[in-house]
Amino acid sequence: MSNQSNISKKKVINFGAGPGKLPEQVLQHVQKELLAYNNTGISILELSHRSIEFKNIVEEAQITLREILHIPDNYKILFMQGGGTGIFAAIPLNMMTTGTADYLVTGTWSDKAAKEAVKYGKVNLVLPQITKYTEIPDPSTWKLDPNASYVYYCANETIHGIEFNYIPETNGVPLVADMSSNILTRSFDVSKFAVIFAGAQKNIGPAGVTLVIVREDILGQAMKICPTILDFTVMANNNSIYNTPPVFQIYVVGLVFKWIKENGSVEGMEKLAIAKSQKIYDVINKSKNFYSCPVKSDVRSRMNVPFRIGKNDEKLENEFLSGASERGMLQLKGHRLVGGIRASLYNAVTIEEVEKLAEYMMWFYQKYDKN
Amino acid sequence: MSNQSNISKKKVINFGAGPGKLPEQVLQHVQKELLAYNNTGISILELSHRSIEFKNIVEEAQITLREILHIPDNYKILFMQGGGTGIFAAIPLNMMTTGTADYLVTGTWSDKAAKEAVKYGKVNLVLPQITKYTEIPDPSTWKLDPNASYVYYCANETIHGIEFNYIPETNGVPLVADMSSNILTRSFDVSKFAVIFAGAQKNIGPAGVTLVIVREDILGQAMKICPTILDFTVMANNNSIYNTPPVFQIYVVGLVFKWIKENGSVEGMEKLAIAKSQKIYDVINKSKNFYSCPVKSDVRSRMNVPFRIGKNDEKLENEFLSGASERGMLQLKGHRLVGGIRASLYNAVTIEEVEKLAEYMMWFYQKYDKN
Repeated sequence: MSNQSNISKKKVINFGAGPGKLPEQVLQHVQKELLAYNNTGISILELSHRSIEFKNIVEEAQITLREILHIPDNYKILFMQGGGTGIFAAIPLNMMTTGTADYLVTGTWSDKAAKEAVKYGKVNLVLPQITKYTEIPDPSTWKLDPNASYVYYCANETIHGIEFNYIPETNGVPLVADMSSNILTRSFDVSKFAVIFAGAQKNIGPAGVTLVIVREDILGQAMKICPTILDFTVMANNNSIYNTPPVFQIYVVGLVFKWIKENGSVEGMEKLAIAKSQKIYDVINKSKNFYSCPVKSDVRSRMNVPFRIGKNDEKLENEFLSGASERGMLQLKGHRLVGGIRASLYNAVTIEEVEKLAEYMMWFYQKYDKN
Repeated sequence: MSNQSNISKKKVINFGAGPGKLPEQVLQHVQKELLAYNNTGISILELSHRSIEFKNIVEEAQITLREILHIPDNYKILFMQGGGTGIFAAIPLNMMTTGTADYLVTGTWSDKAAKEAVKYGKVNLVLPQITKYTEIPDPSTWKLDPNASYVYYCANETIHGIEFNYIPETNGVPLVADMSSNILTRSFDVSKFAVIFAGAQKNIGPAGVTLVIVREDILGQAMKICPTILDFTVMANNNSIYNTPPVFQIYVVGLVFKWIKENGSVEGMEKLAIAKSQKIYDVINKSKNFYSCPVKSDVRSRMNVPFRIGKNDEKLENEFLSGASERGMLQLKGHRLVGGIRASLYNAVTIEEVEKLAEYMMWFYQKYDKN
């Protein structure tokens, strides 16, 4: 991949929760060949989805992903549209064969998924309903329904900063995971899952394409009312080129997969994710409650670190955000549902960038702490 | 918009049916600011969909489109995902209030739309079913159902090269048009329609976003089983930023709208579309059946000109395609359903480029015609 430096470097650090930062090398590669893809004379923005070039783009992206995520042969890799919200409907439409499904609601995104599924069948809430999402109740307390068509969970909740550090045991019921915000940031055993999906705009690529990894035995069971565009089987049978797919996004996604492969693969990204998040949590822990993260320590997210300052001191938080912005550190404002600050540390955010944030946090703490 | 010439010019002409050619100036503009959008220091591929910058991108695109297409105030402009295929489901899901709908099937795309609608209600085929699409039966022969929730048609069929040169009269029943392949290429009275939609990848922008123009009284009637991602009302209430939209495509689409405005607007595009298509049909007409277009002259498309050579002489057609390719004229192969040649003449294809094709056709005719 091109690593040329004749293009002006960005001077900001994007800690946005999504769309998030993309690898600089990928952006430069895209820019370089934007007018003419791979000597075709045609821009990737104009390239036919029926061309041999695009077929190769799709297949290479699939091969690279299969390699870096160790995806077994009995899984199809699909590129779909509609983001996570589209797949929230697609899951029940393709999988709710018994009329009921289990949902683990651990934050806003799994809550939205459960509410969408109610349109298509009975939704069993496995966990007690809670208003503040700060923990994941122990599996011994879960009320799983053995008759459920599937068990659904969100592996990382971006708004509340809650991440599963284990794969739920479902006793043979097909397991579905929304990994929109942490896929390709940790190793895991794909064979434990029936379906894994992820909107691209955090660790995979630009917004506008959704990755779906589906075990073959799940196919062929869609409801009759399933829109073709959300039908996993149609997409699998046509290798994601049934209708015109988002050609550009799939192209960029393929470049990001390659970038990950060339930069330590998923295992390397995981090591970095641990190191990066630890740097921020360390500052929080050392700050004697000047900074506080409401999430229980065992489920704190490596991807999204939400924290408050003082006793939810909004004035001081705004001060923190202004100072960060002056230093080129952008998109640190917490989601409006929880307030405060949120640092998102996706794969493309470097450890040096995280160190800058940690240093700023220390400086800010030493300046404003009144204890 | 930037018109710099320090970037190597493409040497090919893209006559593809979609994704199709985009204006060179738009591509150069996108390339120039790909690493940093509008002095944010953040790439458009990373820009938050909740940022003020993106809100402005959406609103400017809507304002420009409303101006160039003369869209009345009681219509919402939506940017959705899933292409035309997604909207084929969205139309009945949002509009089939009486349980039945009228479909005018004049080619592959309206046929697909009708088949998708069958999932959600009764589909009344207004025209007699025909296997070869070469004409539009006279309105006096249509069997419209006064109880239909809506009347659906495809304004331009890309595969068969059939284009309506009038707006169907529905006697008050809401009218829905798929204008994927001819929107922004002709003036028309938007107020005659309940819904107009168009996949971007022909005259609007890159694949991955679908334009929907919906009259406000249509909103609020979606079926309970309508996936959120296909719900016009949810999208209208959130100005197309309910979930993460395809930020990049909406940005490019806005640039294309601006390019159209600065280059004669829709009225100018229409004059060019007439002139460009006439050049190709003229060669066909003058060729004494060496070239033949099966479509009746009154409904021949200005956008997609399908034709055969000799008596469907595939060997000669391949010869034609090879020669065209050697001259840099690409993507002229007809759709596999109809064979032969197809020249797509979308807005970004210049009259000079069409002239080159016409000249090549004349040369080829003079060389190979045996009459």
